[in-house]
Amino acid sequence: MRIQSFTVSRDGIGAGEEQTLERPFGHVDPGVLMRWAFTTAHFPGRQEPGGSRGIEDYLTRDFAQGIGAEIMGRHKFGPQRGPWTDDGWIGWWGPEPPFHTPVFVLTHHERPPLVVGETTFHFVDASPAEALEQAKAAAGGQDVRIGGGVTTVREFLAADLIDEMHVAIAPVEYGTGLRLWEGPEELTDRFTLERITAPSGVEHCFFWRE
Amino acid sequence: MRIQSFTVSRDGIGAGEEQTLERPFGHVDPGVLMRWAFTTAHFPGRQEPGGSRGIEDYLTRDFAQGIGAEIMGRHKFGPQRGPWTDDGWIGWWGPEPPFHTPVFVLTHHERPPLVVGETTFHFVDASPAEALEQAKAAAGGQDVRIGGGVTTVREFLAADLIDEMHVAIAPVEYGTGLRLWEGPEELTDRFTLERITAPSGVEHCFFWRE
Repeated sequence: MRIQSFTVSRDGIGAGEEQTLERPFGHVDPGVLMRWAFTTAHFPGRQEPGGSRGIEDYLTRDFAQGIGAEIMGRHKFGPQRGPWTDDGWIGWWGPEPPFHTPVFVLTHHERPPLVVGETTFHFVDASPAEALEQAKAAAGGQDVRIGGGVTTVREFLAADLIDEMHVAIAPVEYGTGLRLWEGPEELTDRFTLERITAPSGVEHCFFWRE
Repeated sequence: MRIQSFTVSRDGIGAGEEQTLERPFGHVDPGVLMRWAFTTAHFPGRQEPGGSRGIEDYLTRDFAQGIGAEIMGRHKFGPQRGPWTDDGWIGWWGPEPPFHTPVFVLTHHERPPLVVGETTFHFVDASPAEALEQAKAAAGGQDVRIGGGVTTVREFLAADLIDEMHVAIAPVEYGTGLRLWEGPEELTDRFTLERITAPSGVEHCFFWRE
């Protein structure tokens, strides 16, 4: 059970609270928060050539390696609230999402699976432990990624279901928004922590269990 | 055409000159030089559980990703010199080498291919450019890795055939031996260079072309 390249600000904010269709991260600009990842050669979904091939590219090129399923919160999938309507929404990623695996979307409103390109979204009303069981069964022996957002990551950490986690701390501060943590050291009771600052100014935190 | 996790000392030494069966790196102890890689969870061929999962593990877990063939010098394959004899040698790696792809061994003494586990070694008397052509044809559209040793890396750099390279500089000095370079900055006329020092004390240098 892994978390990859999840990015927060220096004050622990991963997204704004006021999500809309135009602003998936609310007042947080993902082009700033996630710049370190977007500028790498292997960022999933990158169309244009070029991009950096330094240490941060090794983090993004690991995205699909050994991953057999993803679990995400409903708001990572879309801005809708309440019961689903027939609005044609297929997620933020267009006709070919970068997952290429089963994706389990946590929601209190179940609905039939949705196939988009090579990705199938399953909508499940389940606890973190139950969702993990379903995702593991679908992952064919490979790892399960927790894709976010902040609330979902917090829930899986609270349930102590994460084995390995990479969190990037971008050199920005937002003051308000959805907060992952006060700081990475609050998890060192459970995880070994390695911290390294890249030339981009982003600090990368790696957590694993010995 | 990539070089991955090639490790040298602070003074640029990648191996000793006096290679023997007992000492593949001559007076250089690979357990010291390569400690940063050996201690990661994903080092190829690692048998025991555990290992670090920080930034250096992302470097070793990338070993096989997107690689369709390897080119290596004869001395990376074995300690023999001159014409091959029927000595039963299958390389340093035992019955299941970590490559799982075609491997092209540069030698002035050609011989029939050798199949060991899932790896086939081809012994070719070829220039770097010719060897690259053969390896590309065998790589099925994937990248070709230059596996080393020092002399082979130098030959491919001299022929300007490397697209991307990761070199680790371990915090040791040897004074004598097979030298890759005076320092990484001598390649910045051709490559973008990113340098970052890990908590292990090893400096990782990433080279790529814009």
